[in-house]
This record gives sequence, structure tokens and C-alpha cells, in this order.
Amino acid sequence: MSNKIRWGVLGGGGDSLIGVLHRVAASMFDAYQLTGAVFNPDYEENIAFAKAIGIPTHRIYTDFDTMVAEELQLPAEERIQVFSVLTPNFLHFPMAKKLLESGFHVICEKPMTMMHAEALELERIHKEKGVHFALTHTYTGYPMVRQMKAMIAAGELGEIQKIDAQYYQGWINPIIHDPAQRSSTWRLDPAKSGISCCMGDIGVHAYQMLEYVTGMDIKAILADLNHLYDDNQMDIDGTVLLRLGTNAKGVLRASQIATGEENNFTVAVYGKKASLKWEQENPNYLYLLEDGQPVRVLKPGHGYNSRVSLDGTKLPPGHPEGIFDAMGNIYKGMAKAVRGESYDPMEFPSMRDGVRGMSFIEKSVQSHKEGNVWISL
Amino acid sequence: MSNKIRWGVLGGGGDSLIGVLHRVAASMFDAYQLTGAVFNPDYEENIAFAKAIGIPTHRIYTDFDTMVAEELQLPAEERIQVFSVLTPNFLHFPMAKKLLESGFHVICEKPMTMMHAEALELERIHKEKGVHFALTHTYTGYPMVRQMKAMIAAGELGEIQKIDAQYYQGWINPIIHDPAQRSSTWRLDPAKSGISCCMGDIGVHAYQMLEYVTGMDIKAILADLNHLYDDNQMDIDGTVLLRLGTNAKGVLRASQIATGEENNFTVAVYGKKASLKWEQENPNYLYLLEDGQPVRVLKPGHGYNSRVSLDGTKLPPGHPEGIFDAMGNIYKGMAKAVRGESYDPMEFPSMRDGVRGMSFIEKSVQSHKEGNVWISL
Amino acid sequence: MSNKIRWGVLGGGGDSLIGVLHRVAASMFDAYQLTGAVFNPDYEENIAFAKAIGIPTHRIYTDFDTMVAEELQLPAEERIQVFSVLTPNFLHFPMAKKLLESGFHVICEKPMTMMHAEALELERIHKEKGVHFALTHTYTGYPMVRQMKAMIAAGELGEIQKIDAQYYQGWINPIIHDPAQRSSTWRLDPAKSGISCCMGDIGVHAYQMLEYVTGMDIKAILADLNHLYDDNQMDIDGTVLLRLGTNAKGVLRASQIATGEENNFTVAVYGKKASLKWEQENPNYLYLLEDGQPVRVLKPGHGYNSRVSLDGTKLPPGHPEGIFDAMGNIYKGMAKAVRGESYDPMEFPSMRDGVRGMSFIEKSVQSHKEGNVWISL
Amino acid sequence: MSNKIRWGVLGGGGDSLIGVLHRVAASMFDAYQLTGAVFNPDYEENIAFAKAIGIPTHRIYTDFDTMVAEELQLPAEERIQVFSVLTPNFLHFPMAKKLLESGFHVICEKPMTMMHAEALELERIHKEKGVHFALTHTYTGYPMVRQMKAMIAAGELGEIQKIDAQYYQGWINPIIHDPAQRSSTWRLDPAKSGISCCMGDIGVHAYQMLEYVTGMDIKAILADLNHLYDDNQMDIDGTVLLRLGTNAKGVLRASQIATGEENNFTVAVYGKKASLKWEQENPNYLYLLEDGQPVRVLKPGHGYNSRVSLDGTKLPPGHPEGIFDAMGNIYKGMAKAVRGESYDPMEFPSMRDGVRGMSFIEKSVQSHKEGNVWISL
Repeated sequence: MSNKIRWGVLGGGGDSLIGVLHRVAASMFDAYQLTGAVFNPDYEENIAFAKAIGIPTHRIYTDFDTMVAEELQLPAEERIQVFSVLTPNFLHFPMAKKLLESGFHVICEKPMTMMHAEALELERIHKEKGVHFALTHTYTGYPMVRQMKAMIAAGELGEIQKIDAQYYQGWINPIIHDPAQRSSTWRLDPAKSGISCCMGDIGVHAYQMLEYVTGMDIKAILADLNHLYDDNQMDIDGTVLLRLGTNAKGVLRASQIATGEENNFTVAVYGKKASLKWEQENPNYLYLLEDGQPVRVLKPGHGYNSRVSLDGTKLPPGHPEGIFDAMGNIYKGMAKAVRGESYDPMEFPSMRDGVRGMSFIEKSVQSHKEGNVWISL
Repeated sequence: MSNKIRWGVLGGGGDSLIGVLHRVAASMFDAYQLTGAVFNPDYEENIAFAKAIGIPTHRIYTDFDTMVAEELQLPAEERIQVFSVLTPNFLHFPMAKKLLESGFHVICEKPMTMMHAEALELERIHKEKGVHFALTHTYTGYPMVRQMKAMIAAGELGEIQKIDAQYYQGWINPIIHDPAQRSSTWRLDPAKSGISCCMGDIGVHAYQMLEYVTGMDIKAILADLNHLYDDNQMDIDGTVLLRLGTNAKGVLRASQIATGEENNFTVAVYGKKASLKWEQENPNYLYLLEDGQPVRVLKPGHGYNSRVSLDGTKLPPGHPEGIFDAMGNIYKGMAKAVRGESYDPMEFPSMRDGVRGMSFIEKSVQSHKEGNVWISL
Repeated sequence: MSNKIRWGVLGGGGDSLIGVLHRVAASMFDAYQLTGAVFNPDYEENIAFAKAIGIPTHRIYTDFDTMVAEELQLPAEERIQVFSVLTPNFLHFPMAKKLLESGFHVICEKPMTMMHAEALELERIHKEKGVHFALTHTYTGYPMVRQMKAMIAAGELGEIQKIDAQYYQGWINPIIHDPAQRSSTWRLDPAKSGISCCMGDIGVHAYQMLEYVTGMDIKAILADLNHLYDDNQMDIDGTVLLRLGTNAKGVLRASQIATGEENNFTVAVYGKKASLKWEQENPNYLYLLEDGQPVRVLKPGHGYNSRVSLDGTKLPPGHPEGIFDAMGNIYKGMAKAVRGESYDPMEFPSMRDGVRGMSFIEKSVQSHKEGNVWISL
Repeated sequence: MSNKIRWGVLGGGGDSLIGVLHRVAASMFDAYQLTGAVFNPDYEENIAFAKAIGIPTHRIYTDFDTMVAEELQLPAEERIQVFSVLTPNFLHFPMAKKLLESGFHVICEKPMTMMHAEALELERIHKEKGVHFALTHTYTGYPMVRQMKAMIAAGELGEIQKIDAQYYQGWINPIIHDPAQRSSTWRLDPAKSGISCCMGDIGVHAYQMLEYVTGMDIKAILADLNHLYDDNQMDIDGTVLLRLGTNAKGVLRASQIATGEENNFTVAVYGKKASLKWEQENPNYLYLLEDGQPVRVLKPGHGYNSRVSLDGTKLPPGHPEGIFDAMGNIYKGMAKAVRGESYDPMEFPSMRDGVRGMSFIEKSVQSHKEGNVWISL
């Protein structure tokens, strides 16, 4: 009998990219065994997919409710221990809710829920149960992001005086300029993707990252969102002013109409003593700036990195790791938690990140609609 | 008798860096002859400086008023044709005013004036006189900035949908954290530097650059400025939301407390068809982005550049030119204007840039003080 | 019964990094099932490791010979199909030889053998058997390396006129300067690592890469190798002049004493019409240069890439993939071959790469020892 | 009477780029007064050019010999002090020779002469006369190149163990592939440009740079040069193996057929303790590498730079200076020498650089022709 963690997957079948990302991540440290799944609402496709990826089919279920019910019938030592929720956004909340209530550990794709109220409900349930919950803000799994957080926590920047995050993409550009596409894509339909497109999809990554690396709560925001055509007012671009502390401010910029940008996500934290900058598209570089000193470029795998950063690097310096490795690190951290081993809370984003993220999304839209006013978080 | 333009200089003596920048720029295309000056309010230092830099001393004057009066006595063919105003900020307006009224061409350092009202007055006088006026927003002299403007004007980006400029420095960091220094430096004293520090000094460069490269007017702004210590409320950091057109928005970010940043001035313009990005610290690279195409990196001196960009490049590709060369290009353009030769208005920033810049500075402060509200420009 | 390929592993146990790399790679496309192994010469450690990574232990064997013998007893539909040879260098040849002779497919770490003669023998055996052989020159699995090869094959560079590869590391620096370490490390012991350290370990990667991307054979070499201390004359640095065709030349540079370099492997191919450059430490960028044109930066996942490049990219542009993904692509290609599906020969390095690589290593040393003379390959 | 240095110019008229470069450089520190010249062999064009650039015409001479003769008639305090020789390559030697013999200081473009023997003759004359001689290997004037030299001289890298320089251009590509052009361009005609094209034009820059920054003599070379068409065998590409010390080796690579490269000149010096890398196209960055430490990026104008580096920076950090500024620094150093002020010998390349450079060129060709053999320098 393998001592791997018994892992269940919801969604992620067919040509789902997120499914590949999670499966590879789960395999990276030999910790998870894909034990059961509902990859797809169609049972035949579900089975076919399981065969295609070489998974035994006896614990491929017809649907989520059946899966939970039948797994609960199994003895604890055979039962799936942790589920990954990779379904469409609107299913994250009901599935995570039932899983937590049933005592399963949960790894959940973002956005955690469709509404802040749902997030609060999940948080309440999670607190009652002794289970672990990880939200896959994947970028926090990069070793140099962890290093950034560790250095800030250690006071190496001194008091934070300015933060700046950018998340620029251009992928929606061809869609938004085509009336047929912009009226039919699910991303621009609030019923399917929630009240926000840009902030809900990528702005929230930037928000979570800023709170993650600084270890501080953003206290208030003022958002100015944008759409290009009045027949679809979902935000596809926006700038959000931030209050971090008394005289610490910042700005968060997100766009899906930054033509030609791929996934240009950057974060900069400026402190009284020093600063750190990181860019997702070149994730193995972390820039340390100080007054009157040469810029220092930190890279993964070196002994000067923190323990938790090094824990997320598999090869020696100079062998680039990427986004699959970042997700792998999140799964590694969750495996420690599930097995009751010691782990650092920074190893995976938490329920709290999800609650705050949903608040950010809703209040960004509210701030914008009320005329670009300050709203506390 | 040389056919060079007779050039007068006000300020820029001693160890002034701006003086060096202007003198080198003026020499680059063999067009100007430094003919007279008041480098320094102290006459002995003035003469000593003239000798140190090898300028004949007979047209080194005791003070500005004397200089103007005596030059006006000279026959037109001997009289100084164009003055460069390099004095402390508060002297820009009175000097430029008198020079324009007296019929001299003027090259003026920024900020053009201390107040928007003064800028409007200069503009009125300038319109009455048949003289040329250049405002030295030096960065617009870089060949790749000119190329950016030319490509946007030619419609290569399509309709503009988003703009983003950043001007981050960290130099004030050691000053602001020292109570003695922050209460004594002239930059933080409104009487000496005007109502704004960060927006007045560098934010206005970013503002002018955005209007310069897009050829569009920013219609309204909402500013959130920042200071770190309540005993000195001059802005040393800030973010300004921008309205460029109906659904074209943007953001301008400026900081002097971005610890470790040197002169990190960047500008990005995202259009419906393509985008352009430029960074001052690597000024010979211009990035062209399109959906689904390789990023293209344009560099100076190649035949694919516009005529006005090529006019500002002296050597073949691969020989980096810098900030002195950018200022040299502005002087070259002004020389054409002074000599009555044809020139492209993009060759030097204009009175209008100065007027709009002063408006931006004042209204940024106003927007911030009134609680981060939108103000039209 | 899973339809995954039954996969055996030799070596790679304990804290082996190469073991992790191969296991993750094999898992990436859901194609391989780790079915049996000899991870370690010590049987108890072998079993312990299998348990640690969650592999059933009934096909964990005491040693290589037993493993081959017993697997051959199994019915074909249960028998391991492909073996990965991850053992110390001197075992590559005997293991690969026996595996090929026994009709197994083989994935072999580099160097393929210790001597060129052995490589020729392997090649002979391989030709007799209808099995597949992949040599894990991992870097050829990067999507932009494949794209480079595809573009050159398509004639986009025109006739090749110059090639240049660099592989600079600094890791041996602290070892080489310490008499105790340099006399004891296995890398500097010819009995354990073969006649060459630097060329055998990394120079051969650069050599294989040049032949891989150009699709051409290097015809002759002149090598100048280097050591720092005369008490250990194994090469730790060297430059090799290359003849590619009549008037096409090039240079290959490799070093393990380039202090501070991590894994700085670059390749440039200059053609009559255009050129391509790639850098391993930033593997998702491919630079296309042409006379008088902007440099173009190609990135993975875009439609402008070739089919075989796109086949090696799992996520949309802007999500960096790394070295694990490159190895995953090699395993993916080998899986197609093993399953009898169509594949492109560029999907994994071949026996021929191994034979030529061993020739390169031996002749580099020979050229050097004979006084830096030209030797045909 | 100005206290500027009286400066004469030979060549550099018309649309000469080198003329612009030297005039701007000479003006940068207010040290030189262009007093007399023979810009052009045609006297009318000569006078016209002087007028065009605003120089008095009474010391514009008909020819070089007349100029020297007449200047020598002038009292010492009126006579030109230093001449810049910007004429075609074959005139450098006779002009420099006569000028040195006549007691003038000389600034000479590279190549210093056509043949090594001439260089030795110049050196002999120079030693007899108490005058200063500067060879304009412009790139050594960059502040970060000076810093590199200063750090190596201070022992910060420890013993040098490897050097690597690259000078890649692609400009000759369209010429070389066109039979008409390759048979007519002066660069490929030995009578006009000397026995080497690529090594004589750019290889020698790389050679001088390596000796400049290391402060060491290269002891022996083995060159492999290349041409593409047998009807013109002038080298347009080549690689040169280098012996720096007992076990310190290196490589110099130069090409004019590296299609699409502009002026990609890089230098790397690897020492026992640390390494430094610099790239001409981004000249304001100097990379310091150490085992297990973050890479440090040094930039001009910071207090951590050496005195002689800072002496070559006119503006605060973040204001890019370029190739004109580098040449300006060489003129600044020469001005100190001419005025008898103290200066650092690293402020301008010397006669010795010229002698060794000519030796390098000749022996590169010899090594190649003799079958790629080692030749001592």
C-alpha cells in the first residue's frame, strides 16, 4: 500500500490546462496518488479521460454528490484525503463548502467563491473543522516570491513606504473589439464569472501578492475601472489606489487590454532601508535595491536564500524552474499539512487570502460605481 | 565672423550639472556660440567661471537686467539671439517673461514657472512676439521617444486604450528620514520649489511625456499624493489617475521614495492594434508589442525609424547615445527654428507643454487636497 | 489495467537530483507508470526509497542483472517497456548495452558511454534491434530550442556562416582551488568520469546543441583545454574552434571556472539572411536578428511557432516553463515512439547524438594533447 | 585670451562621423578650442566645412605639411598644442610621426599605423620627445570600463583564470554577399585598410580592452580567421585563442558577418575570487559575480565607484551617458596631460596600446596563414 496522500480531483478533464497544471504539480514530490475524480459532468467523457491519463476507473464517479457520499462510506484509511476543486468558478463555493463540511482537506482554485458573503461562510465552516485549505494563488509558490516575503518579514527592507503591483495582459483585446465575441464570452458575463472580469481574474492575484509578500493588510482602496464599449460594462482594465498604513500607500494596476502583453505581473515593495522587485515572466530573479549600493540580483537555490525559498527549489542554481514548479511547491506545502508535518504557513495561500480577495473584488467594483471613492477593506 | 547662433546663458555656473548639460548640448551640432552670460549672481565668481570654461569675459554681465539692457544696445547682428534660462525655479518666469518681451528666443529649463497663472501670462506674451520658445523636457529628445511619437501619430497603434507612465527615484529617501534635512532642503520648501515636490519635479515629466508621445490631451486627473512625515506635507510620492478620452484611461506614478531607484522613468502606450514601451534608463530600446506577434525591439539609427528620429542619431546602430545627446537634439531643433529653417514641432517641447504642465502640477495638488477628486485639465 | 507505458528506472534514488528530474518529466503527460526499479545498489535503501516515493515494492529488484532477467520472464504485456539509465557514468554503457540487446527501449543520461568505441558498439546493437533510444540532452526539449531548429531547417536564416556556443559555469571553482578537494572529487578522476571533465560534462552539451539546431555535422575541431593546477590535468575549461562547412566556422567555449556563472549556456547561429540566439537561463526567449530590422523576440505558445515547438508548451504565453518541462518534452516524444505513434525525430536526441558526442569529447582531448591541432570528426 | 587648449584637427570634415565624435568630445569639458584644421584634402571644401561648423578660417590650411610648417612659425603661446589625427588609416602613421617629431601632442584614431614596424618607429620617436600621445580606443573611456580596470587592479577578482571578449557586428553582411561590393569596398582592400579587415578594425579593440582591463599582457595567440568567398580572402570573422599567463587562458571572438548584430562588444574577466562582465551596448552596467552571492550590478556615478570612474561621469546615477561621453573622457584625460596636471594613466590609451595592437593584428594573420599555430606577442 502506497503511503501517498489519496487525492481526488473535481474538474480539470478534457483539454483543461488547469487540470494539467494541478496533476503535474501533485506528482512533483511523489506525495499524491490520484485516487478518484469527477473530471467531467458527462460520465462517459469522465471515464474516457481517466483512461486517457492512465487512472483506474473504479473511483471515477458520475457526479460530485455521489463522489462525496461514496467516499464517506469508505474506511478512513482508503478514503480520499484531499480534493482539488478545478471546476468553473461558480462551483467553487458549493463544492468547497460540502467538502469542508464532510471533513476533507481542500485545494481550491481561485476565485475562491463568487461573492464575499460566500467566502465568509466558507471561512466560518473551515474554522469549525480541523482540515486544511489551500487557495492556489500559484505565483506565491515561486521560490523568489517566498524569498521576498521572508526578507520583508525579517525586516530587511525596514518600514514599508510604497507598494506597486502590475498585472497586464492583452488577451481580451481581440475579443473585446468584436461585438459578437464580447457579448458571448463567459468571462464578460457576470452570471458566469462574477461581478468583475479584470479585478476578479487577475487584479485579485496582484492584491493577494501584495498582502502575501508584505505580510500586511491593505486598509482601503479607491478603484477606477474601465471598459471600452458601453454595451458591456464588465471591467477589463483598472487602477486601484491603496492605503497600506498611515503614510504607506501604493497602487495596483491590472489590465486585459494591454495589447501584446502576455502575463506581465510584477510586484515592487519599497522600504525605508531597501526595496525588492519581482517579475512573473522572469520568476527566477529577485532584485534588491538600496540607496547608493549596486543592485543585487538574487536567484533560487543559493545558500543566501531562506529555508522556505530553498525548500521550493529542486535543482542547483541556473536550472530555470517555472510555473509548474511554483504550483508543485504549493502542493508540497499542503502535503506536509495533510500529513501533520510541520510547515510554514507561507507555503500555501489560505482561506484568509480567499476572504480578503473576494472583499477586494467586490469593493473595487463598489468604489468604481460610487464614483471612485475610498472604501475600507 | 562665425555664422553660429549667438547664445546667452543665465545660471549654470560653478558646479551646476544643468550648466554642463546645456553647454555640451549646445556644442553638439556646431550651431551655437556661447556669447554672453550671467552664470552666477556674484560677479567675481561669474567672471572666474567664464575664464574656467574658456569664454571671453567682455559679455559676462553683473546681472540679468544689465545683460538684457546692454544686449539690446548692440546691433541686431551682434546681439545674443537665444537665451537659456538655467536659474533656480522661481526665476524662470520673470526672466523668460522679460526675454520674450524683449524679443529674444528662449530655451527654458522646467518647471517653466512657479504657478499656472504665470505660465498663462508667458503664453500670452509668447503669442504676441515672433520668437521661439523651447522647454527642456530633455527626455523627449531621445531618438526612440521621437520614434514612439511618430509611430503613434502615424496610427500604428490604432486607437489608444490605455496609458501608463512611471517615474520612480529614491534620492529623497535619506533626506526625508532625517528631520534636520527634511526641514531645510529647498526641494521641500514651497517658497523655493513651488507647491509640489514630486509632481512638480518629476511627475510633470511623465505627464508631458504622455501627452507628447500620444499627441493627445489628458482631460482629467484624480491624484493621491503622499508624504511620510506630517511635519512636512510636500508630496514626495503620488499616483494620478488619468482620463485620456471617453473610454481611454491611464495612470501616472511618481515617487522620490522608491528606495534604490535611480531615474526609472518608463512610458507605455497600449493601442487597439499594438503597443509601445520605453524606459529612460535604457533609452535606445523601444518595444513594439502586438497580439500574437514576437515583440520587436527598435533601436536608433536604423532606416526603419522616422526622419525626425534619425535626425537625432549621430552614429550608426549599436553606439549608445545618452542624455547629453537627447538634450543636444533639442538644441538642434531650436537652432533650426532660430535660423528660420524648417523643423518638426516635435523637435522641442513648447510653451503649450509648459502651460499644461503647470496646470497638471497645480491640479494634482488640488485633487489630492480636496479628497482625491476628479479635476478637469 | 492502465494504458500507461511501463517504465523502469536504474539509479536516481536517495537524494539524486537527476532522479527527481526524470520522475517529474515522466509524469508530465500522464504517459508513464513507474513499474520497477533499482534505485540504489543497496537493497534496503532501494526498498526504502521506493516506499518513500510511493512505489509498489514487488518489482524493486536487488540489482540490474536480476531485474533484466526477471522482467524478461514476465509476459510482454506486463513487462517493463522502457528503462531510464540514471546511474553513474561508467554504468551507462554496460546497462544500455544489455537493455538494448534484451529488446528494451532505453532513455539514457549523458554521457552515453565512457569511450567513443563503446558508443559505436551501442550504435551497432541499436541498429539491429527494433527499439527506441533517447539520450537526455535535456536542453533540446525547450520549446524555443525546437523552434530554433525548425526555423533553421526551414531555411529562415539562409546559409549558415557562423556558429557560437558558450557553456560557462563556476561551480568547480571552490573545489579546484582546494588541493584536498581537487584530488578527491569524482569529476576530476578519469577512472570515474572519463578522460574529460569540462568537455565531457558540459562542452558536449554545447556540441550536441550546435549540431541539433543547425542540423549539420561539425567536420573538424581544434581544442585548447585548460587546467589550473598541474597536479590535476583534467580539463576544467576550454575553447574549441569549429569547422562546419567550407567557409562556415565557429567556436565552442566551455568552462567550470567562470567564477559566479551558474549554468550560462548560450547558442548563436548566424546565417546569410538572419540569425537566432538563445540563452538557457532565460529559456523562453528566442532572438531573431536581421540586417536593418528590429530584433524580434519569440516566445513559447504563440501561433507563429512551429508545430513541434508548440507541442512542448503546456500553458498560454507568459507562463514560464523550465528545465523540468524541457525534460518532460523529451519523455513525451519518447512515449510517442514507444507507442508507435508518429513523432518528429527532433523530439528527442538520438543514438547518433551520443556517438558524435563521444567522438567530440575524445577528439577534443586528442587535439589539445597533440598541440592544438585540427582533427576531423 | 582663452585658456583653452589650442587644438588642431586633421580629417573629419564633410559628413565624417568620426569628426563629429571628436568635436563633441573635445567640447565636453570646456578644455579645447578648435584653432586650426585640415578637414579635407580639397581646400575649398575645407574652408566651406570650417564655415559650416563656425570655425574661423584663418588657420584652415591647404594641406598637412603647410599646416605643420606654419604652426611652427607661430610663437609657442599661439601655436596649436595638440592635434587629432582622423584621416584615413594609411595617413595615421606619417602624420603622427611628423607631429611627434615636431613636438606636438597627438590624439590618434586607431589603427595607429598600417604595420607593426611603423608602430615601433612611432614608439621610438615618442620616447625621445616630451609630448603626450593618446590612441582613441573609445570604449575604454566608459566609466564602467574604468571601474572594471580599477577593481581588477585592486585585486578584487583575485588571480585571473579566464578571459573572454566578443566583438560581433553584421554590417559587412550585405557587402560581402555582393560580388561588386566586396571587390570595391575599401575595408576589404589591403592597400587601403591593411592586412586585416575584421581583426584590424574590431578585433584589435577587443584585444586592447582585455589588456586594458586586466593590466596584463597577452603572451601568445592562435588565430583562426574566416572569409566567405575565396575571391576575397580578407578576414571578416575570426576566433583567437589567448594565453594570458601560465594557466590563464582565454578567447577573443570578432565578426563582421554576425548577421543583425550591431556593435555587440562584450568583455568578461573571471578571477579566482570574483568576475566582472561588461557589454558595450548597455555600457552603464557592470556585473560582478561571486560564488554563491547575488550578482551585483554596478552603475556609474555612485560613491562605490573608483575615483577615475567617477571622474568620467557628469550626471547623477540613472542619467545614461553614451559613446560621446566615453570619448569625452579620453579628451578630458589628455587635457590634463597636456596642461601638466596630474592624471591617471588609465585615462587614455597609450602608444604602448597601439604598438601591441599592431602586433596583435599582424600576428593574428600570421598565425592563421601558417595553419593556426601559436605565436608569441
